[in-house]
Amino acid sequence: MLEERKRSIDISPEDEDKIIKVYGWALDRRDLGGVKFIILADRWGRVQVTWVKNKSDPNVETALDSIKLNDVIEVSGRVKKTPQAPRGLEIDPIEIKILNTSEHPLPLDPTERIKSNLDIRLDARPLDAFRPRVRSIFIVKSALLGILRDFFHENDFVEIITPRIIASATEGGAALFPIPYFDRVAYLAQSPQLFKEQMVISFERVFEIGTFFRAEPFNTTKHLNEFTSIDIEVAFADMYDVMSICEKMITYIYDKIFERCRDDLDRLDLKISKPQVPLKRFRYEEIISKLNEKDVKVNFGDDVGSEELRNLEELREEYYFITHWPSKIKPFYIKMNDNGTSESFDLNHGSLELGSGGTREENKEKLIKQLIEKKLNPSDFSYHLKAFGYGMPPHAGWGVGLERLLMSILKLDNIREAMLYPRDRFRLEP
Amino acid sequence: MLEERKRSIDISPEDEDKIIKVYGWALDRRDLGGVKFIILADRWGRVQVTWVKNKSDPNVETALDSIKLNDVIEVSGRVKKTPQAPRGLEIDPIEIKILNTSEHPLPLDPTERIKSNLDIRLDARPLDAFRPRVRSIFIVKSALLGILRDFFHENDFVEIITPRIIASATEGGAALFPIPYFDRVAYLAQSPQLFKEQMVISFERVFEIGTFFRAEPFNTTKHLNEFTSIDIEVAFADMYDVMSICEKMITYIYDKIFERCRDDLDRLDLKISKPQVPLKRFRYEEIISKLNEKDVKVNFGDDVGSEELRNLEELREEYYFITHWPSKIKPFYIKMNDNGTSESFDLNHGSLELGSGGTREENKEKLIKQLIEKKLNPSDFSYHLKAFGYGMPPHAGWGVGLERLLMSILKLDNIREAMLYPRDRFRLEP
Repeated sequence: MLEERKRSIDISPEDEDKIIKVYGWALDRRDLGGVKFIILADRWGRVQVTWVKNKSDPNVETALDSIKLNDVIEVSGRVKKTPQAPRGLEIDPIEIKILNTSEHPLPLDPTERIKSNLDIRLDARPLDAFRPRVRSIFIVKSALLGILRDFFHENDFVEIITPRIIASATEGGAALFPIPYFDRVAYLAQSPQLFKEQMVISFERVFEIGTFFRAEPFNTTKHLNEFTSIDIEVAFADMYDVMSICEKMITYIYDKIFERCRDDLDRLDLKISKPQVPLKRFRYEEIISKLNEKDVKVNFGDDVGSEELRNLEELREEYYFITHWPSKIKPFYIKMNDNGTSESFDLNHGSLELGSGGTREENKEKLIKQLIEKKLNPSDFSYHLKAFGYGMPPHAGWGVGLERLLMSILKLDNIREAMLYPRDRFRLEP
Repeated sequence: MLEERKRSIDISPEDEDKIIKVYGWALDRRDLGGVKFIILADRWGRVQVTWVKNKSDPNVETALDSIKLNDVIEVSGRVKKTPQAPRGLEIDPIEIKILNTSEHPLPLDPTERIKSNLDIRLDARPLDAFRPRVRSIFIVKSALLGILRDFFHENDFVEIITPRIIASATEGGAALFPIPYFDRVAYLAQSPQLFKEQMVISFERVFEIGTFFRAEPFNTTKHLNEFTSIDIEVAFADMYDVMSICEKMITYIYDKIFERCRDDLDRLDLKISKPQVPLKRFRYEEIISKLNEKDVKVNFGDDVGSEELRNLEELREEYYFITHWPSKIKPFYIKMNDNGTSESFDLNHGSLELGSGGTREENKEKLIKQLIEKKLNPSDFSYHLKAFGYGMPPHAGWGVGLERLLMSILKLDNIREAMLYPRDRFRLEP
């Protein structure tokens, strides 16, 4: 089937008068009596099929007349040059087969001329993603996945796969889904944190891009219960080293996205400009001062999230880092300073947090002390702590949410736009 | 930290007499009285640090003497040419810092000279993966992940991410882990099957490489409860088209693995030869006849697994397909023929099944009929069935287990060798 097929983008002026076979969807049709048009769409583009009374094959008229919107069709025909048609070429049909029919009314307009609300779109995601703008978002997401992995492989990172089913709550917290696992209870991992740290012993530079889980009952436009995390961990590195890797990654992404996704970015009709590096860096305390100046009351030790950051208009469209968060709001594995700050950072785009990272504590005794300070039981972390006796190098790393990163690049206003089948408290289907 | 560092492989004869800084692990040491050696290992290789009494810096002797096996160290020193040292270069130390110590006795010999059993190794995986041969397995796995994605991106596949948390048992079966999901019960996905099929409407060619789950209480050397699946689905394709994509992928993998992983393959000391394509193809009935000839009793309709296939010695080291399996042992979404066979295939390597695929049923009415025949309730599949009214093209696809594929390439005899942190009925930690 595939071998004899011609994709829409492969039809060229050299095919004039040749008989070709195309497959796709009937995206539009017009009947002017003596002339009948079908616009056939495949993933790569569109081609016009034009039937002319007394010129084209009379046997295909019946098939042509029975085609409904979004039916799946196979068309064999002769390529003709026509200035009016898209790309100057059209097909004079010799044989048309309807391979599968669509059911009407469709839940969405596949041409995207009629807008639908997000819930209806997500309920009919396969048809929603067929629509050009939505399709472009996910083609960019696919390209982004390729670009990210190229970046890490080129920079000599080892790709690892860590478990999704884990024995104990990694960072404490109620944010875990429990699973009955044979005779025990297990949990769904919320990040590869502990495993990626352990793996710097063997591989020094590791990355993972995978699905992780948060069990909180979120109800926002930027949280999902299942999301994709981009994670790295690097031996003999501190927070400044991995912030600089993060900056390089962002530059790399923008360069390659422009190269690989020109058409899809055009279709999304966005003004995208490559961020300047080095990105701005603010210490947590500077951000607090800035906010206090704007009469947003935040004290040292308070979390600073989207709601507060939305007040900093000057950072609205920018990527930037906030560093040196208070130790008390950071997890146990971050390197803590004596003055109550920690060797940590967040990566933000405007008011949206994309990810966070830091220098990790590599000293086993200090780590145990920090576990206890965070009211966690070191014995729950025995396998992890053991690894700190195997030759644990100083290390640092970060995690960035892939869907949030995509939101920042494509200026999406709801994270559900960046996930084919989002999972939230109320949505478990399709 | 990273910027001033020199990796072992970057030290070259041009560095002679320069002062450099290296980081790594003390893999070995010798003390000949007047001359003391440390072999420093990093991920990329090894470098010898040689201290000579009355020639080298006397201040580093104490640090040098206190170093234990697998301690993490930082060495600054002058590069010297020495024919006896690995690669003809060594370091005369000026400053040595112990960055972190190891705890002795270590659970494993990091140099791999002393063998350990698999359970001990898996309990101490970060140290196990530090050992050269084990490390090489996972560096090849990382390369394989990159190669696979390159292949799919080059062949215009769109990378998709489908949900791991799903609302209903996709293929029936008890092989699902249930999860309490807010007020409902959800399941962990065992494959992206239904979602990838839906997505051929939008993207025509999709792939996903991700972690999936099987809840069976396996106790074999080739099953895990959490594994990585390589999945594709292609519109306007049948089983022969996707078998040919599979063959191309295998050829591509072998070409690129030889290119990218020469050193790691050498370290594993394997005789690897690129498979000839097209791969051999046997119909299920032919395999049955072959087995019956060898007095292995199998009837039409029986499953044929590793145990039976082990009798076909002529296929021991080969990749091959078994096609046209009986409909009754295939899932509902496979295209069934009238004669009791189906448009399906398995990819095998010797007696090991690596994956399976087939032409899918694209007709909604037939699909509902097949669901009922398999004793499944069509209403549990309502979102999936809806997609078959949106313009579902004929399509085909397959899924291949990444860890099994790696087993076949590297001739591993236990799938746990191919997973950093394997999950089975008895192993949920580390």
